Amino acid sequence: MKQNKHSLIALQKLIGYTFNNIDLLNHALTHRSANKIHNERLEYLGDSILSFVIAEALFNRFPNVDEGDLSQMRSSLVCGEMLAIIGQNFSIGEYMILGQGELKSGGHRRESIISDALEAIIGAIYLDSNIQTVKQLILLWYQTRLNEIQPGIKQKDPKTRLQEYLQGLRLARPVYLIIEVIGDDHEQEFVVQCKLDGDNNRYLGRGVSRRKAEQAAAQMAIEKLGIK
Amino acid sequence: MKQNKHSLIALQKLIGYTFNNIDLLNHALTHRSANKIHNERLEYLGDSILSFVIAEALFNRFPNVDEGDLSQMRSSLVCGEMLAIIGQNFSIGEYMILGQGELKSGGHRRESIISDALEAIIGAIYLDSNIQTVKQLILLWYQTRLNEIQPGIKQKDPKTRLQEYLQGLRLARPVYLIIEVIGDDHEQEFVVQCKLDGDNNRYLGRGVSRRKAEQAAAQMAIEKLGIK
Repeated sequence: MKQNKHSLIALQKLIGYTFNNIDLLNHALTHRSANKIHNERLEYLGDSILSFVIAEALFNRFPNVDEGDLSQMRSSLVCGEMLAIIGQNFSIGEYMILGQGELKSGGHRRESIISDALEAIIGAIYLDSNIQTVKQLILLWYQTRLNEIQPGIKQKDPKTRLQEYLQGLRLARPVYLIIEVIGDDHEQEFVVQCKLDGDNNRYLGRGVSRRKAEQAAAQMAIEKLGIK
Repeated sequence: MKQNKHSLIALQKLIGYTFNNIDLLNHALTHRSANKIHNERLEYLGDSILSFVIAEALFNRFPNVDEGDLSQMRSSLVCGEMLAIIGQNFSIGEYMILGQGELKSGGHRRESIISDALEAIIGAIYLDSNIQTVKQLILLWYQTRLNEIQPGIKQKDPKTRLQEYLQGLRLARPVYLIIEVIGDDHEQEFVVQCKLDGDNNRYLGRGVSRRKAEQAAAQMAIEKLGIK
């Protein structure tokens, strides 16, 4: 079994919650490959909490939008890809407890493992506190995304949205540069930088493919620039 | 627009909750055929609350059951058919506000309309109170079903379960009698009695088909007899 590389203090700072019972967080970070007692029950619980919290947030935010659009927005906010992006921002992969097999095959970078663990963390926080506490945290994690989501249009991917935003301002298209490729051929992780004309900030994204890393970098730029 | 046939006081007694803002209950009972402001947003909210409450109840009740079985049990408890049975016990159909078209075609007996309205009522109770209150109510409505559900086996239908229970005691098979058929040919509702040997109680079930009415009657017998 792999032990956590880093202290869980840093992770708790990133997610914004300090556990009373740290065993719950360890439990949420334990993949089924590592131990008979793994995070899937917590993931099941966390999934239902996340759906409820996001459903209510959208219900309140869009008082005149019908349930079809609300459901569609919720799906896009709680989908695995979105959860993986949030989980990667917390560097959850670095803290995962994985079995040898998963460890060797790059499991700590696999999107599904990260998104499942994030749901498990939500379940663990709930058990460690109460629904109000976990709700406030989720709303904080989703603050930008809840601010920018709009009903009635298919949710566009980050690269498209960033490009349309720049076009609207008659600015040049963003440039994506591969900064680093980590790992062996069949288990690579890409680090990509999104460069904007006249903007010296570094918007970095990671992903198991170049495409995904570019989308993550674009998402980072969107969030940092506060693009609606 | 059809007005509620009965006073909402009786309905509130059945569901076990008295609204501070009765408009919310009326809203939850308003089908989209009746009014531009209808119950589908409340249904969307209620659906997520119900899933969370049932997920947590199963999580606590079955500490050693894996997430696959938990998910499967949850699905069987929150499915439309189950919601319709609970809604029919509350006679929700009698209180629905329907448009002329739905009214004529027997919409107040349609399972999907009743199960959607029950979810909307859950959403309405939540908005009228808080998560603890609505959780307690849902757990009360589901008390028998939560007590009897078991993981790892495909959830059997009520008729099968009742028959197996009686076989186990070497008792005669139940007899199902059609008591009443309401409505025209193409929009009938059946009322069926389930008769058990040596038991003079009347276990009645309603449904849009004979089969569904029989299942509802068997479910009623199961609940009244406390069959696990």
